[in-house]
Amino acid sequence: MNAPASLDGNKAAVRDQFPGLPEGWHYLDSAATAQKPQAVIDAITRAYAHDYATVHRGVYERSAMMTQSYEAARSAAASLIGGKPEDTVFTRGATEAINLVAQSWGRDNLKAGDRILLSTLEHHSNIVPWQMLAREVGAIIDICPISDDGRIDLEAMEKMLTEEHRLVALAHVSNVFGSILDARTATQLAHRVGAKILLDGCQAAPRIPVDIGAIGCDFYVWSAHKLYGPTGIGALTSPLLSDMPPYQGGGSMIDRVTFEETTYAPAPTRFEAGTPHIVGAIGLHAAVDWLREQDVLNLHRHESGLVAFAREELSRIEGLTLYGSDDSAGIVSFNLDGVHGHDVATILDDAGVAVRAGHHCAQPLMDHLGVSATVRASFAAHSSAEDVAALMKGLEKVKRIFG
Amino acid sequence: MNAPASLDGNKAAVRDQFPGLPEGWHYLDSAATAQKPQAVIDAITRAYAHDYATVHRGVYERSAMMTQSYEAARSAAASLIGGKPEDTVFTRGATEAINLVAQSWGRDNLKAGDRILLSTLEHHSNIVPWQMLAREVGAIIDICPISDDGRIDLEAMEKMLTEEHRLVALAHVSNVFGSILDARTATQLAHRVGAKILLDGCQAAPRIPVDIGAIGCDFYVWSAHKLYGPTGIGALTSPLLSDMPPYQGGGSMIDRVTFEETTYAPAPTRFEAGTPHIVGAIGLHAAVDWLREQDVLNLHRHESGLVAFAREELSRIEGLTLYGSDDSAGIVSFNLDGVHGHDVATILDDAGVAVRAGHHCAQPLMDHLGVSATVRASFAAHSSAEDVAALMKGLEKVKRIFG
Repeated sequence: MNAPASLDGNKAAVRDQFPGLPEGWHYLDSAATAQKPQAVIDAITRAYAHDYATVHRGVYERSAMMTQSYEAARSAAASLIGGKPEDTVFTRGATEAINLVAQSWGRDNLKAGDRILLSTLEHHSNIVPWQMLAREVGAIIDICPISDDGRIDLEAMEKMLTEEHRLVALAHVSNVFGSILDARTATQLAHRVGAKILLDGCQAAPRIPVDIGAIGCDFYVWSAHKLYGPTGIGALTSPLLSDMPPYQGGGSMIDRVTFEETTYAPAPTRFEAGTPHIVGAIGLHAAVDWLREQDVLNLHRHESGLVAFAREELSRIEGLTLYGSDDSAGIVSFNLDGVHGHDVATILDDAGVAVRAGHHCAQPLMDHLGVSATVRASFAAHSSAEDVAALMKGLEKVKRIFG
Repeated sequence: MNAPASLDGNKAAVRDQFPGLPEGWHYLDSAATAQKPQAVIDAITRAYAHDYATVHRGVYERSAMMTQSYEAARSAAASLIGGKPEDTVFTRGATEAINLVAQSWGRDNLKAGDRILLSTLEHHSNIVPWQMLAREVGAIIDICPISDDGRIDLEAMEKMLTEEHRLVALAHVSNVFGSILDARTATQLAHRVGAKILLDGCQAAPRIPVDIGAIGCDFYVWSAHKLYGPTGIGALTSPLLSDMPPYQGGGSMIDRVTFEETTYAPAPTRFEAGTPHIVGAIGLHAAVDWLREQDVLNLHRHESGLVAFAREELSRIEGLTLYGSDDSAGIVSFNLDGVHGHDVATILDDAGVAVRAGHHCAQPLMDHLGVSATVRASFAAHSSAEDVAALMKGLEKVKRIFG
């Protein structure tokens, strides 16, 4: 099919805001990390150059202002997903956020024989922390299967869940397939047996509207660098924070320290030991503002349109296996018969198309698919049908080289 | 005394490199966090604007180049303190680095009845993680006293250390007094009883030449934001990393993940779960380069000169108590009789002088001094006698107001 005109409509308005996207370069690896709009870069530069000071502890004016900015960033992080600032902790990223839940809530709430439910398509960051916890406390991990088109099978999940399950941890959007979880139903199923549910929102928060109030989940995590924001910062939002024990010790997270006894600050401060990633929070705030200006629902439609177009184009290539479902959120995975993904990606790189090839930190999913790798093209606000056309042209070259 | 001419020599050459220091503003809170030279800000902006990509996993050229930059930053972080890149892990900051050692090495090596030696002057970040570990494994914490002029008393330490001590954890430079530990002797004393030693280098790395090869310590930690670098990143260097179990689980830190069993990558990768603070590492590298261009020994002499000048000036104020020793590294703490530190700092703020007043995340030290707070003025590369003069002028105003 011809590319719908709307798929290119964003180019002038959006792509030009990204200094990291020179003409002729097609960045299709936004699911790994997003390029940054100028507004975010400017916010970071301004924070380091003119507004810089520490937070919480300074009694001079600039520090007080930076503290306000830092807390405003917390409010922005919370409201993006329909959460509350007092339930929101800044972490190094989603990975650390999941480790925080495993180490703080998990060690406090799970015991030998308790069960954790994950799914086949989880990212390593939503597998390994639970394996470490399970080994420590003697809990058992169950794996919910996925459907043929790459969705977490909620009917299977309903049958698997028991009263021994204390936690369900699932990707809100798959980083390999782009498939979207019915998060509300998954939450209801988890809660029905008394389990808590954590949603890994790394791919969801930048791609689809998220309202954790409506979903009802217990823990929601995401990373700023995948959401057009800076590296080194992410967020955990949970109404359970105030009942959770400290995670790391240090400055700012205490109420009073003596060598005999230390008492801790209330949440969320309790979970932010040490000087925080101040400028990361400022940049995250700018990224959230930028994303909202684009309108997440609008972006979702744009990226879904690109997925539909790309899948239709890709499906015409002989010997190409497409994974996932047609209504994926901005992510397409595929393989070419007889060509390793890395070779595909290397030739695409020569053609000015950046895709990711590998296991995407989802080796159990690769095992399930019976492959060692897939090629993944992922879209963002700045993507257009031109990027898809460049991908197709690059794949023709791959076909020529590998016959 | 008049300010030595050399104390102002740096102004044009150095201060002008800091966009965050407008004329007439006297930033004396560098021990809390350092202002950033333009070279560091430019490196961060360039990384987000033109070179941005993920590391380790991308097969396209820009990602490969970013991976090289990230690993070059690791080498810079290591070599600044005389360590090896393969022994160096990037963390969120020194606080997380200490927590990493406590949770990984500590839980693996300490058992009930083992002892940890800290000192009276430690920062909360070098107290609370050990308290959390001690409570978990049943270890005991001992406190090495300090001398009247604010140094960790190594003679007392020698007498206190026993074969039950598994770890000694000390500040290389005190964040309240600026006093410098004889790190080599402390290390020898610890090793003599078979204990490992961790040095908190937050205030040392930006202020004095550090060579952990010569010191012989087992763990060295520091934060970039106190070393003219970005927020959200620091480093741990330790030759023991390869024997330490994983700390957080996630992407990049694994060798192979299955639901049955996960094997981990070698150090240092094993300790860097998830997408790292890529641009933080680039900025840290720029900060290390900048610091080396200034010559750390040269900076140390400059800041020591300012400390000597400031202490002499301050000692003339009636009712002012000076803490610490005359040869402190860039940090001066004091109190004015009958005036709370916060009031001093607020009036100084009005006078364009930014100092910190409070417990400096060292409440046990405040208890030892019998105060709830001190006022702290801390110097950096850009500081000059003009800053000291502004401080003195501000303190005159405090004296006028509080009689």
